[in-house]
Formats: sequence, C-alpha cells, structure tokens
Amino acid sequence: MQVTVRGRRRHYRTVTFDAKANVVELIEQRLLPHEFTFFRAENFRETALAIRDMIVRGAPAIAATAAYGMAQGAQAFRGRDSKKFARHINLVFEALKNARPTAVDPVNAMLQVRAAMKSGETVEEQQAIALAAAEHFANEDVEHCAAIGRHGAKLIKNGTRVLTHCNAGWLATVDIGTATAPIYEAQKRGRKFHVFCDETRPRCQGASLTAWELAQQGVSHQVIADNAAGHLMQRGEIDLVIVGSDRTLGRTGEVANKIGTYTKAVLAKRHGIPFYVAIPLSTIDWNLKRGFDIPIEERADHEVLGAWGVVDNPSTKNSKAKVGKRAYVRIANSTSTARNPGFDVTPAELVTGIITPVGIFKPDELWKRRMELIGM
Amino acid sequence: MQVTVRGRRRHYRTVTFDAKANVVELIEQRLLPHEFTFFRAENFRETALAIRDMIVRGAPAIAATAAYGMAQGAQAFRGRDSKKFARHINLVFEALKNARPTAVDPVNAMLQVRAAMKSGETVEEQQAIALAAAEHFANEDVEHCAAIGRHGAKLIKNGTRVLTHCNAGWLATVDIGTATAPIYEAQKRGRKFHVFCDETRPRCQGASLTAWELAQQGVSHQVIADNAAGHLMQRGEIDLVIVGSDRTLGRTGEVANKIGTYTKAVLAKRHGIPFYVAIPLSTIDWNLKRGFDIPIEERADHEVLGAWGVVDNPSTKNSKAKVGKRAYVRIANSTSTARNPGFDVTPAELVTGIITPVGIFKPDELWKRRMELIGM
Repeated sequence: MQVTVRGRRRHYRTVTFDAKANVVELIEQRLLPHEFTFFRAENFRETALAIRDMIVRGAPAIAATAAYGMAQGAQAFRGRDSKKFARHINLVFEALKNARPTAVDPVNAMLQVRAAMKSGETVEEQQAIALAAAEHFANEDVEHCAAIGRHGAKLIKNGTRVLTHCNAGWLATVDIGTATAPIYEAQKRGRKFHVFCDETRPRCQGASLTAWELAQQGVSHQVIADNAAGHLMQRGEIDLVIVGSDRTLGRTGEVANKIGTYTKAVLAKRHGIPFYVAIPLSTIDWNLKRGFDIPIEERADHEVLGAWGVVDNPSTKNSKAKVGKRAYVRIANSTSTARNPGFDVTPAELVTGIITPVGIFKPDELWKRRMELIGM
Repeated sequence: MQVTVRGRRRHYRTVTFDAKANVVELIEQRLLPHEFTFFRAENFRETALAIRDMIVRGAPAIAATAAYGMAQGAQAFRGRDSKKFARHINLVFEALKNARPTAVDPVNAMLQVRAAMKSGETVEEQQAIALAAAEHFANEDVEHCAAIGRHGAKLIKNGTRVLTHCNAGWLATVDIGTATAPIYEAQKRGRKFHVFCDETRPRCQGASLTAWELAQQGVSHQVIADNAAGHLMQRGEIDLVIVGSDRTLGRTGEVANKIGTYTKAVLAKRHGIPFYVAIPLSTIDWNLKRGFDIPIEERADHEVLGAWGVVDNPSTKNSKAKVGKRAYVRIANSTSTARNPGFDVTPAELVTGIITPVGIFKPDELWKRRMELIGM
C-alpha cells in the first residue's frame, strides 16, 4: 500500500526480497506507528530472528517471510554438492520454523517452497526454483487479499460505519490485508465511509497498526477503547463489523481471533449488526472438530499491566519522562498479576459471513464446499 | 480501609477532616497505584481545586469532600456578622460547586450541610453545625457502604470468581466502597474467592485503583484486559459480576456506569452469569424517564490514544525513557483521532439485582418501593 515518506507517496509491501543482495526486507513493525523504517535481514538467521522478535507479525506476513527466508538460505549456499545442499536447506527450514514454534503458516509456506525445489536437479536449479516459489507465494498472498477486497467491498456502502478489531491489515499480510481489504477496495471505488478501530488491548494493534494504515490510506477513522463499541452499537453508530482470523474451523465455522473478537460478535448479534470474518483459505483448519480445543495462548502479564508507546505530554498532567522517548509504562498496581489469554473463539452462530478470496460464505457452508476450497 | 505503609498497617479513609488545623485531607489518587500520599487542602479554594484536578474522584468521595469543604469554609470565617457570614458561605458553595460542574452529589451534600446550618443562630453556632453536618454526611456514607457490604456478601461464596469493572471501591467513597463492599465483607467473613479486575480503558481505574485496593486488603485478584472477560465467561471462569453506578434510573432500573459496563452485562446475560449493581441511594435518579436521555460525556481523545503509568522495563523490548518516571505514552498513530464516550447505559433486563444499603432489589422494584427508598 501507499505510504507518505518525506512528503512523497510510495508503494511498500510488508515483506519483500532483494534477490540481488540476498536480503529480506521488512517493515519494522515494532516501531510503528511512531517510526516507519525497514529491517534488512542479511541472512536466513537474521530473517528467523525478525520473525521471532516480531519485527514482522501476522500469519500471512510471517509465512511469506519464511518462504523468502528459504530462498535466501538456498541462495547463500556455495558449491554443487546436492547432499550438502539438502542438509543446509534442512538447517534453514528448522531455524525459520523455530522462530515461532506454534505458527503453522510459515511451515506450510516453507513446505511449498521445498516441494517446488524437488523438481530441480542441480543445486543451481533448486536455488532458482526456491526464489521463484517464494516470489509466487508472496504474489499469491497479495492476489488472495485483493480478491477478499473485491468480494467484501460490496458490504461497505456510502455512509457505512465499520468496526474492526486488532490488525488484520496490510501489515499482517504481504499487502492489502484481509479485514482491511474490503475497506481499501471500497475506498478505491470512491465510497465515503468511516472506520472505528478497536484499540485492541493489551497489545493495541488497532490503535497503533490499523489506525496508522488507515491514516496512510486517507480512510476516515477513529480509535475507540475496546469498552466503547457496545455503547456505539446501542446508539446505532456501527453498521458492520469486519475482523480477521488466526484459525477458522472448516468443520464448524468457529473463528479463533485476537482476544475481544468474541465480545464484539456477541454485541453485534444483540444489535442485529452483520459480523464478517475475512480470511485467506490457508487459515482454515479442516481437522479440528471443536473450537474449544483450539489452544489459547496465555501471554505475559506485563502486556496487560502496562503499555508501550512514546512519551508525550498532554496538557492534563505533568509527565516526568522525556518526551519523544519510546517507553513501556506500568499502569497497574505493582503487586498485582494478570490473566492474559491472547485469543478467543467465536461460535458460528454469531458469524454472518466469511469473506474468502473465492467468495463470501455462511460459516456452515465451508464444510459443504471443502473440496472446492481445499483445492484452491 | 487498611494500607501498609513502611511495613505498618493503618486505617485510612479516602477523605477526612482535620478540624483542629481546618484542613481537608485526601488520598492523592492521581499518584496511585504508584505512590500512596496525601493531599492536605489548607482552605476551601484548595479543596475545590482538589476536586477539579481529580485528586479525589468518585461521586460519594467528592460529595463528602465538598461537605467538608463547606465546614472548612465556614470555620475560616472570622467575625460575628451573620450577613457577611451568609455571603461568605455562598462564595464557598459556588467555588466547590464549580469544581465539577456536572456532578450532582457534591451539590446535594452541600445543600444538606447548608440546610442544617439554618438551625444555628450565631455565626459560631452555624460554624459548629457545619462541621457536625459534614462529619455526619461522611459517616453516613461509610455506614451505607457497610450496609451494601452486608447485603451483598451473601453473593460471594467460597470459590466464587467475581468480575468487577472500573473502581467503585473505597477510593470512590469515604471508605469501604460500593461494588467492593460485598468483596471486603466476604473477605472479613473468611471466604476464599477470586476477583478479576477489568483494567477499564481508557483511564484504567480497574488496573490501577481497584487492583491496588484489593492488593492492600489481601484479596486474591488478577487484572484482565477489557477484551478478556468474554473469553473467561465462555470458559466458565466467572461466576458473578458486581459493578457500581454513577446514576441509576428509579423509574426504569437502567444503570449508567463507566464505559464498558454495558458490554459486560450483555456477556453476563449470554452466559447466565448474575450481574449486580451496588449503589448508594443518593445515585438513584427518580426523575429521568429513559436511559437514552442520560447525557454521555465525550472525554478527551488523549485518554484513548495513550496511557498513564510509570516507566518500567520488561525484558521484551528496550525502553528508552528513564525507569521510575511518571509518564503519559502515546500508543496510537499520531494522526488519528478518537471517540471517547465516558459512560454507557445498561438496560434493566440485563441487571440481576441492585445492591443498596437497605437490601437487594430487582431493577423494576425500585419504583414500587420509591416511597421507602426516597425516605431513607
């Protein structure tokens, strides 16, 4: 998507590969929205670290990063010994896999690259195939997001007030995003609408990443506390909810997504507001039989007990720290602990539709159409 | 309630009056939970400033502060001229009233003090009556909270997991609190239970004030993001919700309280979890006919776009600001704005019961019992 840097608009993907320099280039997401910079991973180990340290986050984005990491690792190999090369590729695979051990998308992406490499005979051929496969993976991700945008855009009309949760935006994918894709497509079609971004505590990806994305694209938006959506719905100020998903169960239509998604779905149901989930097909889990069995990661206490930002000085109180410095502030009582579930599961009955690259489906349609959807 | 200061347990009220020195003494709430200190308002103008600057907050607490401010203002008058004294008292009244112009409780408290003063003939008599009336008002608040605790304590059994929202605690009253009163009473009765404190964005009174209070009283508790309660309810980890209220409509049983309360009520209803509201009788509005007409204050953007705390250094990222300094950090994208409604209204159908100093009532019982309740 477009970003304004020193007054000039330029197009940036979240993840790109500089094949000549053999460098994976990533938007440094830990510094957003306060600084827009890039991280250049010079070798596959640095690429793995970038995934581990969340310089890049979002399942599709880390999947593409891992795919490029494979190509990068392959390219770096010197020599013609196929056996040594195969051992080296295993090493690269493991390093990238271990960067986020619970994520499935990077592993699937790397398996695709590795499967493609099998058709090459020489080391050189395999290296070239790895690069092409990684590029193909990234481009396909962009195409899928664009298709989600085309299908979802019809939900956003002139005057529609959309609620989003967390960041399923272009920063979570290679480009365009999933939940944001219909928004950007509607914007492209010239529609005038408004987006409320849940700030999405505890990590605040809505306030930081989604709000930044929307601002860069000139989409009318406001940040709200997660507590405010219920009130806005009650007052008739929200017409549509679109969220992303980390895992959607193909058998039941249940949707696992960032903590707080379930709450918004319950509220939307009560107020008769359509609740849509935008997903790439890769996030559909065709095996698991019930949402209750999706493991819910319990994250660190400090995420809930404080917040990250940049020291600023609103008029109301005197800030004693130096303005402009990045800082974590503890908000909570220092002797208190936290519960911090990272995700929740929304039952299918609360989901109006699932926006995929091949169309919008009712949650219970996924299983009926599985042959078609798995084949994609 | 008890606070440990330098290893010693002592009892502190939120608001007290040092009649000898003619000083209103307040727990300095803007520094909590990071520092426990007192603000000594040396004259009625300083007391008004303390209310305005939110050194003291919570309707019952600022009501008692205003009552003491009246006594303080009266005591400061030198001379025997009743007319001059009456003019001075009007000045005191206006100064304290204008400190938080939209709050009704301080005005009602001061009207009580002024009404009592009418029975005095000399200036000296009126000064003495003002002091006695203010003390009476504060002590009555404590008694009412204690009564809420006795009625509400039966809801909390061994093993009960309670959810609270915001701070309707001892810091919001003279002592004991409203929503916290049943918790402290159950604790006193030796019951073992657990409290989840919603952090309550954007001002985080749950994470800071309620968590601090519960920690000081040794009540088992954890802070959660406002987003997490739905998930915990879904997994059967919450048995009871108790919140406070800024205004409860006597005619309809609708409850206005801190933003996010409505969301918790909707979730509780879905999961069949009892949802109680603890209130002093002074917060019942017998006039307003529908909750929709309760004015909802839109507060400053910066509350949502950032957070207040003390710079700390969790292991995950490097904080560049100096550890230990109080700071406001901007979390959100700097070019984004916010919507920040401060309160929401929960309909009566979602409220299991209203815990008052005279018993627990269904929301629709309030109006039927109005003669009895107004008479209190």
